[in-house]
Amino acid sequence: MIEQLGLIGCGLMGGSFALALKRAKLVKRVVGYSKSPSTTERARQLGVIDVAAPSALLAMSGADLVLIAVPVGASEQTFKAIRHGINDKMFVMDVGSTKGDVIEAARRGLQDQIGAFVPAHPIAGKELAGVEHADADLYAGRQVVLTPVKATLRSNVQRASKVWTAIGAKVVTMTPEAHDSAFAAVSHLPHLLAFAFINAMTAHPQGSRFLELAGPGFRDFTRIAASDPTMWRDVLLANREQVLLQAQGFREALAHLEALVRTGNAQELEDAIAAASGTRSLWQPGVAASPD
Amino acid sequence: MIEQLGLIGCGLMGGSFALALKRAKLVKRVVGYSKSPSTTERARQLGVIDVAAPSALLAMSGADLVLIAVPVGASEQTFKAIRHGINDKMFVMDVGSTKGDVIEAARRGLQDQIGAFVPAHPIAGKELAGVEHADADLYAGRQVVLTPVKATLRSNVQRASKVWTAIGAKVVTMTPEAHDSAFAAVSHLPHLLAFAFINAMTAHPQGSRFLELAGPGFRDFTRIAASDPTMWRDVLLANREQVLLQAQGFREALAHLEALVRTGNAQELEDAIAAASGTRSLWQPGVAASPD
Repeated sequence: MIEQLGLIGCGLMGGSFALALKRAKLVKRVVGYSKSPSTTERARQLGVIDVAAPSALLAMSGADLVLIAVPVGASEQTFKAIRHGINDKMFVMDVGSTKGDVIEAARRGLQDQIGAFVPAHPIAGKELAGVEHADADLYAGRQVVLTPVKATLRSNVQRASKVWTAIGAKVVTMTPEAHDSAFAAVSHLPHLLAFAFINAMTAHPQGSRFLELAGPGFRDFTRIAASDPTMWRDVLLANREQVLLQAQGFREALAHLEALVRTGNAQELEDAIAAASGTRSLWQPGVAASPD
Repeated sequence: MIEQLGLIGCGLMGGSFALALKRAKLVKRVVGYSKSPSTTERARQLGVIDVAAPSALLAMSGADLVLIAVPVGASEQTFKAIRHGINDKMFVMDVGSTKGDVIEAARRGLQDQIGAFVPAHPIAGKELAGVEHADADLYAGRQVVLTPVKATLRSNVQRASKVWTAIGAKVVTMTPEAHDSAFAAVSHLPHLLAFAFINAMTAHPQGSRFLELAGPGFRDFTRIAASDPTMWRDVLLANREQVLLQAQGFREALAHLEALVRTGNAQELEDAIAAASGTRSLWQPGVAASPD
């Protein structure tokens, strides 16, 4: 289906995409570039890419699909670097966790080539960054959100949808604004809270003794706190407006529960916990908690 | 090792303890009582208990070990109900997630029999409450915290330690105060935050649409929000002072991160996330994150 994939950013996300395409025999050749030459070379040694390119522009030359899998903060410079290499047969995707800022970066960086770009966010990941952890199964069964804008060529949205579907992902399309609001709620805010929780623990004089006693609840609640700092710095800054808005909603809900605990309002506390517990018990990945 | 176990509260925790003793052939007979007769009967049908007793006092009659596995809010009435059945050959344990309040309840309820009581908190659980989910492996490899007080007979602490060790748990001893402070940090506060997070999501006009997009990070972060409302109401109220104190520390850490996001302080934000990520990456269950 794809003659040549130009992979810009040979990390976990990009590497997993390349491996998935290769395993499904959907790509003939993968040409890769990473900012760090040792990463590019490592990707080649691992068979994630076939050819190591010395620049982003050379990595995309001759490709029919270009995947940009760099930290969202590096989006604009990447778009600028590849703009002159884009031709009519080529489409470009990213894998960023935020979409509004990446689209702005694409408008500035790609300019009149913006039609080639299909903004994409695969809802998948691991705490372990790096091409060593790239996994052909990373996207299997996961949702991928495409957020095309007016300028995006419809034919490219269709090609993007087809390639994600072919590697086992489920494609959802929405506006960039709806995406960024939803992911502030379900992903960016939880990360912020998990980081804050660990930092509060560390700030406590007995924090490291406490950690010795932590069990499976702590393990799962804080798993996302081990995520990549550079990536999450960029995500939180890129989507700051929505993240701060939803953090405000969270603080209100927390203050309400704290007040019920402080005043010993057992019935209302139980009701509030039951509401949360009921919602979470009904939740399943990719399924609405209640019909609406 | 145990001739007869008197099990008061035939739910997940108590049922799992009985099953573990039975599987290890450490108990000859289990006599059980639950507040709801249908639960007691169900426990008997499932083979978790051998005999269903019509009262707490009858369930403990003739036992050499009594396990109280009721919501912590029901501790005092349970201690009162069994006080006159306690004799010199018998020791009593609980499985409560809070210890200061249970010990106060034991002082009031057991009075001069307080020496028989060994306060215990096995760090294990599931979101799925009820005897149907009782599991002989629930405590295997888990830590169990014993918090004896001055009046607790040393011989009973030894017996308690021996029985938990025999079913594969690792015994740790500490003061009730140290326990309650540590578990506010590693367990009770995370539950409060997870409940608040889900309630904030529900309060958002588009909350249920957001939930459809949630992925594995959300799944793990919120797993504990599905916990039993009655149990967690009791735990949060029982340990309210420590929970509120540590919630305060959390809110400060969150406000700090929010300020870095708001002002776009990329370097300090990355440093703060890296600190959290590093601490969490080093953490392992039951192992100190840093030597101190």
